[in-house]
Amino acid sequence: MRINNDQIREYNQRGQAEHSRMLGFLAETLEKRGIDVNETINRLHELQVAIPSWALGSGGTRFGRFPVGGEPGTLEAKLEDVGLLHKITQATSSVSLHIPWDIPEDASARKKQAEELGIRFEAVNSNTFQDQPGQPYTYKFGSLSANDSMSRNLAVEHNLEVIKYGEMLGSKSITVWLADGSSYPGQNNFRRAFRNTEDSLHKIYEGLPTDWKMLIEYKPYEPHFYSTVIQDWGTSLMLAESCGKQAYTLVDLGHHLPNTNIEQIVSTLIMRGRLGGFHFNDSKYGDDDLTCGSIKPFQLFLICNEIIDGMNQNTAGNPPIEWMIDASHNLKDPLVDLMQSLEAIRLAYAQALIVDREALNEAQSANDVSRAQEIIQDAYRTDMRPLLAEVRKQHGGALNPLGFYRDQSVREQLIAERGKNVVASGL
Amino acid sequence: MRINNDQIREYNQRGQAEHSRMLGFLAETLEKRGIDVNETINRLHELQVAIPSWALGSGGTRFGRFPVGGEPGTLEAKLEDVGLLHKITQATSSVSLHIPWDIPEDASARKKQAEELGIRFEAVNSNTFQDQPGQPYTYKFGSLSANDSMSRNLAVEHNLEVIKYGEMLGSKSITVWLADGSSYPGQNNFRRAFRNTEDSLHKIYEGLPTDWKMLIEYKPYEPHFYSTVIQDWGTSLMLAESCGKQAYTLVDLGHHLPNTNIEQIVSTLIMRGRLGGFHFNDSKYGDDDLTCGSIKPFQLFLICNEIIDGMNQNTAGNPPIEWMIDASHNLKDPLVDLMQSLEAIRLAYAQALIVDREALNEAQSANDVSRAQEIIQDAYRTDMRPLLAEVRKQHGGALNPLGFYRDQSVREQLIAERGKNVVASGL
Amino acid sequence: MRINNDQIREYNQRGQAEHSRMLGFLAETLEKRGIDVNETINRLHELQVAIPSWALGSGGTRFGRFPVGGEPGTLEAKLEDVGLLHKITQATSSVSLHIPWDIPEDASARKKQAEELGIRFEAVNSNTFQDQPGQPYTYKFGSLSANDSMSRNLAVEHNLEVIKYGEMLGSKSITVWLADGSSYPGQNNFRRAFRNTEDSLHKIYEGLPTDWKMLIEYKPYEPHFYSTVIQDWGTSLMLAESCGKQAYTLVDLGHHLPNTNIEQIVSTLIMRGRLGGFHFNDSKYGDDDLTCGSIKPFQLFLICNEIIDGMNQNTAGNPPIEWMIDASHNLKDPLVDLMQSLEAIRLAYAQALIVDREALNEAQSANDVSRAQEIIQDAYRTDMRPLLAEVRKQHGGALNPLGFYRDQSVREQLIAERGKNVVASGL
Amino acid sequence: MRINNDQIREYNQRGQAEHSRMLGFLAETLEKRGIDVNETINRLHELQVAIPSWALGSGGTRFGRFPVGGEPGTLEAKLEDVGLLHKITQATSSVSLHIPWDIPEDASARKKQAEELGIRFEAVNSNTFQDQPGQPYTYKFGSLSANDSMSRNLAVEHNLEVIKYGEMLGSKSITVWLADGSSYPGQNNFRRAFRNTEDSLHKIYEGLPTDWKMLIEYKPYEPHFYSTVIQDWGTSLMLAESCGKQAYTLVDLGHHLPNTNIEQIVSTLIMRGRLGGFHFNDSKYGDDDLTCGSIKPFQLFLICNEIIDGMNQNTAGNPPIEWMIDASHNLKDPLVDLMQSLEAIRLAYAQALIVDREALNEAQSANDVSRAQEIIQDAYRTDMRPLLAEVRKQHGGALNPLGFYRDQSVREQLIAERGKNVVASGL
Repeated sequence: MRINNDQIREYNQRGQAEHSRMLGFLAETLEKRGIDVNETINRLHELQVAIPSWALGSGGTRFGRFPVGGEPGTLEAKLEDVGLLHKITQATSSVSLHIPWDIPEDASARKKQAEELGIRFEAVNSNTFQDQPGQPYTYKFGSLSANDSMSRNLAVEHNLEVIKYGEMLGSKSITVWLADGSSYPGQNNFRRAFRNTEDSLHKIYEGLPTDWKMLIEYKPYEPHFYSTVIQDWGTSLMLAESCGKQAYTLVDLGHHLPNTNIEQIVSTLIMRGRLGGFHFNDSKYGDDDLTCGSIKPFQLFLICNEIIDGMNQNTAGNPPIEWMIDASHNLKDPLVDLMQSLEAIRLAYAQALIVDREALNEAQSANDVSRAQEIIQDAYRTDMRPLLAEVRKQHGGALNPLGFYRDQSVREQLIAERGKNVVASGL
Repeated sequence: MRINNDQIREYNQRGQAEHSRMLGFLAETLEKRGIDVNETINRLHELQVAIPSWALGSGGTRFGRFPVGGEPGTLEAKLEDVGLLHKITQATSSVSLHIPWDIPEDASARKKQAEELGIRFEAVNSNTFQDQPGQPYTYKFGSLSANDSMSRNLAVEHNLEVIKYGEMLGSKSITVWLADGSSYPGQNNFRRAFRNTEDSLHKIYEGLPTDWKMLIEYKPYEPHFYSTVIQDWGTSLMLAESCGKQAYTLVDLGHHLPNTNIEQIVSTLIMRGRLGGFHFNDSKYGDDDLTCGSIKPFQLFLICNEIIDGMNQNTAGNPPIEWMIDASHNLKDPLVDLMQSLEAIRLAYAQALIVDREALNEAQSANDVSRAQEIIQDAYRTDMRPLLAEVRKQHGGALNPLGFYRDQSVREQLIAERGKNVVASGL
Repeated sequence: MRINNDQIREYNQRGQAEHSRMLGFLAETLEKRGIDVNETINRLHELQVAIPSWALGSGGTRFGRFPVGGEPGTLEAKLEDVGLLHKITQATSSVSLHIPWDIPEDASARKKQAEELGIRFEAVNSNTFQDQPGQPYTYKFGSLSANDSMSRNLAVEHNLEVIKYGEMLGSKSITVWLADGSSYPGQNNFRRAFRNTEDSLHKIYEGLPTDWKMLIEYKPYEPHFYSTVIQDWGTSLMLAESCGKQAYTLVDLGHHLPNTNIEQIVSTLIMRGRLGGFHFNDSKYGDDDLTCGSIKPFQLFLICNEIIDGMNQNTAGNPPIEWMIDASHNLKDPLVDLMQSLEAIRLAYAQALIVDREALNEAQSANDVSRAQEIIQDAYRTDMRPLLAEVRKQHGGALNPLGFYRDQSVREQLIAERGKNVVASGL
Repeated sequence: MRINNDQIREYNQRGQAEHSRMLGFLAETLEKRGIDVNETINRLHELQVAIPSWALGSGGTRFGRFPVGGEPGTLEAKLEDVGLLHKITQATSSVSLHIPWDIPEDASARKKQAEELGIRFEAVNSNTFQDQPGQPYTYKFGSLSANDSMSRNLAVEHNLEVIKYGEMLGSKSITVWLADGSSYPGQNNFRRAFRNTEDSLHKIYEGLPTDWKMLIEYKPYEPHFYSTVIQDWGTSLMLAESCGKQAYTLVDLGHHLPNTNIEQIVSTLIMRGRLGGFHFNDSKYGDDDLTCGSIKPFQLFLICNEIIDGMNQNTAGNPPIEWMIDASHNLKDPLVDLMQSLEAIRLAYAQALIVDREALNEAQSANDVSRAQEIIQDAYRTDMRPLLAEVRKQHGGALNPLGFYRDQSVREQLIAERGKNVVASGL
């Protein structure tokens, strides 16, 4: 289905008066603090977050899956959904595909479709955590790290193939999440697993187009429960630096041990020039894949704060960061959930944009701990939502995306079109 | 030192125009949502949070202590500091004493002083985690739980004495935090330690005046590092119910294992009618005793939300909850830190007050997960600070407590009065 | 397939000499410490651990599943596998079924089969974490706790049906693991969810035969990632006590927050007379469902130690504890894995049996912390494996179960019989 | 006090018969597995673990301290205590000093004393987490990382001075544990703090004698509770590599987030050639500083396993690792506690020495997960204590150190000599 501009315009009309009141107050408030409102609007508009193709259908846990209906069963339908999200939110101009789930049968048609929808193809993702039917060698005991060279080669080939698909579509990066690890002490020789992985990544890196990036994810556990080969940012960074200048670390917010200070990791990686991108989500316990900002909104803000501050003083030449959502929606309409995530990320980013960095720097230099804390909290406690609505409106999106989505009965229409039982590939 | 009304009035004058603008906007916004602003103001004013006497000086860690100067060296000076805080914030009309650190030499003088300052005496706290000089039996291996009956009796006597002091001052509750536990498997027989504790608490309970409450704290570890006798809310509740109707559980936000859902515990205890009070602070790792709301402000809001919702439907007859800060200030001026905590608690409470409970109930009943989440987030994302300022102003406090405190150079005056090196007792 | 006595006898013959040497040394060592070796052997034999029917096939994670081949596709085949395990290990004389996965089509045939195999039916398990095809009301938003009374009733009916099946087979208990919870703040009203659950459990309890037990499991998270209705032992205990004398708490070792002192919980529940049973497994991060004793063998020993000590002084009349494994085997042959778990549990139990309790009590009473620690460590460091072999041998099992299993190529035979691709139901 | 050889000889005589029986059995068992018992004995003897000077007195927590009596009040007395420990255990031929607590007033006398006691001086430790009386600039807001260059310079000077003292005594390494960090978001600029630290470390490194090592410790939190400058091994490694070839990472077992796989970190650092040393202790929650092996003995074994395996195939030229205990004894006689730690480390190391590496390698290559697990567990479950006793005996130590210590009433003699109330410096 498609949303047209009139629908949005008509919807916005209804909320315009209240929006003007809210925005007027906020703009005045920000200006009094010396903040350039228009520049802030522009910077917010630049923040476009990619949608992963696997997040468009209902996710599951190992205990089951409860589909929502109207899910996109083909790549074409998935692009349609991203286009729809972008139309409404104006905040997600790209999609990130997962191979082999999303192999494009007709790449040029998909590319054309995307262009029409105003979206492009962000990082492609390889998948070696499952065996595909008929696969000659198993990934059960590892892929890029496997002791068995046949499994290893297969995994390398798969990644090279993923790059091929990405090239057809105009992607400029590949994300490698390596599920490899061990569940029992003794199962793996840590050093051998690392070296096999390093060797495999080198082979993939050799096949990387010169204008591409390789993003290396890390994760402490799951699906293996004793060790993982790339357990933390330190390991990922070692591998990235070993591969070469086009290799970077990717941070998934859910891939950390309890209580990790993630924002400091973000800061360190930018300082090193090696922060390639993010998988945004939220979590209370582990890799819970919840809606961004639903559990730890202050942490999300602090991460945005480090990104802004780090990129402001980008002495190590960190490239622009790839922003992507990676959540799994067990209970909610995936499109609603993604709109909530997009809003939460932009809200956190907006709050971080208005941190008074000069005053903060002074407070830090003077060791005025309370003052530094106040400056951070002052920005975080400011209600920036009217500005987010304004950004959307200025670019043709809905003042209130969730309100609009419900108003137009989008899910109901999707179910009518696609049926109740289509299953999107994904977790 | 004393602050007089004119100082505050003059200070508020300077900020009045901007305050009016902010408040006007917020009041209109809230009214559009159907919220009674005056009632909200009244409910916020009712939220008075007690200051613990040990938080008025610089805290330390096992690695050292860095004093701030001008700390209150006597009980009289401590009351003065609380009076000062209350004068400025109008949010802390009581103080909570720690015995033996705060034994009142002249109880009636202190009571009179407190009355003049507009404060009263909240829960008294016993202390059996240290030996006092000349103490006949040690608490090294436990106090209320000790295998040695002499240590046990001494600890019981101490608690009864604490009640005595509390009675002199007008307190109506005693908080028992039991540091007892073990650091090595085998050191303690868990069941014997529990039964000794139960027995000791019964003896203290027998000495409890009929209009008093006994608040039983729990904590999973520290200063013992293998087990603690009252390790969690379940254990505390068992002990409270074993003692009788005047015994309750006290929740310290820092006393939980990683990732604990504290707000659910709060809800359960109210449902059971046994939530006696709180020790508010914040933490990232363990019992870090940081400023309230400085690390997990959303959690603080969710806790307030459960308190409000639970007390609205108080079928089990939970008594009014005792609100207290329990933080330790290693790096900041303690008074500044306490003002930051008071602000953070009231802010979270104010946000929780405006949750649209009717709509939330509907969304829950309809299993509309996204909608329920939105309702919660909408309240949390609202900037309620202008209302907090208004509450203070209406009762004679400062529009901006931290601004006022700095403007008047309060710490500098305290150092001038008391010197640089007075050491307040405390952690 | 069946193993006959001659196969085992022949196998044991080969290892007899070395076994005698090992056993002789151990027996002498134990006797010098005043331990009655024969009594220890008898107590070890009494320790029979139930096998859950869902652990006989390859488990999976949300990221995939790698089957091992020869898995039992029917209840009959599952019983066969448990019989085989029992034949070899003499340590698992019962099986625990999961309904609806294991609905017995011919209950009396299954009962007869079990008798022939020397096994009986332990607790039956209900399952309301997935919807079954054609199910009229969904469990997506809860089952026993659901806001929707139709879902709730369905879940109650299901549990009553599970009891029916259990009665046909001779089970005497039902285990309720409730996956219900919420993934977002606001989704659930905690108190309503608790009360719905309490009410539902009462209805099931009313249908409980008078010689049955109801075992109530708790778990802090997964498959829900913000809250679970029965989040911890305290909540489970409240529900059990609310139901009545036949209701108990069940402890799954993987269902705790990081760093929880599980052995203390075990001790508390026995003291309260409410420890119904265990789901044994091991974990490093969360509910990892790893082989027992593979990650934290010392914790397993400490738990056994509390069980033995608590049941020795069983003042609250705790009934005999139901021992069950609950592991999920992603990488290993499930039967091999279960044999490793059985060995690890018995080893920990054997070490706990030889703790010198008299000396420990003395050391505790004298606050001799080092001595108490030494006593515990001395037992733990003793290599009790020869005694475990002897117990098996005396009852017709294999001296070395894993050696025997490989020697006889059991898995190869099962694959030959059942094929490579049968899929056992399970996680 | 001094122990003489006759006392030990006489004591060993009493236990010799039983020791022979135990050793005879174990030796036969090991030989059957193809293990060279004498070589194992030699390798165990080579494992000498340094004692930190601050662990010889009673430790404290922020809640208090309970002294044991007879503590060493001077450096001379501390060396005496280490000599005593070495005499009895033959497992600790060195001591690690903390400056400024242990500034040697007469270095040559101390060096001579140490020689007579058969001990040498291991790493010296700097201390910038406390201010010393009269210190011109504070470390309250950081030392090597401080924004204030005066504090930073002071801290650099202090470290250089520590090296000076170490040179006088024959030390060959300095351990830098940096307590610097922040307790509130905003307090620190992460990148500035890192760069200040890097710069300061470079200055210290320039003053490092060419035959010395610099060991850089990491820690995620405490005494700061939001961030630490060197939060994890990745950060420490970056700093070490930035300094130069003589800089290494030091691993303290208690300095990790919950559930960290420490053994994998150990393996990675050896692979990189940058594992300088250890601070051994044990913990359940945080930096609990408990006796080695008292909580997680299996983890200790797995760490030893990685050390042995990594150093066997030391392709990156990792230097010999410095083994040190870093525990804090709140409840136990420090000397008893240290003997328990020494025993636990050697026991874990002995078990790791007998892992069948060839078979393990085969099992890993064949992806035989169960078999690999069995090989690891088989080594761990073997009771190696008789071999530890034999190692001691062969070198003049006591068969049973704790037994001997109690038998000779060592603590009582120390109290008689030194009094009840001497306080050793330390935590």
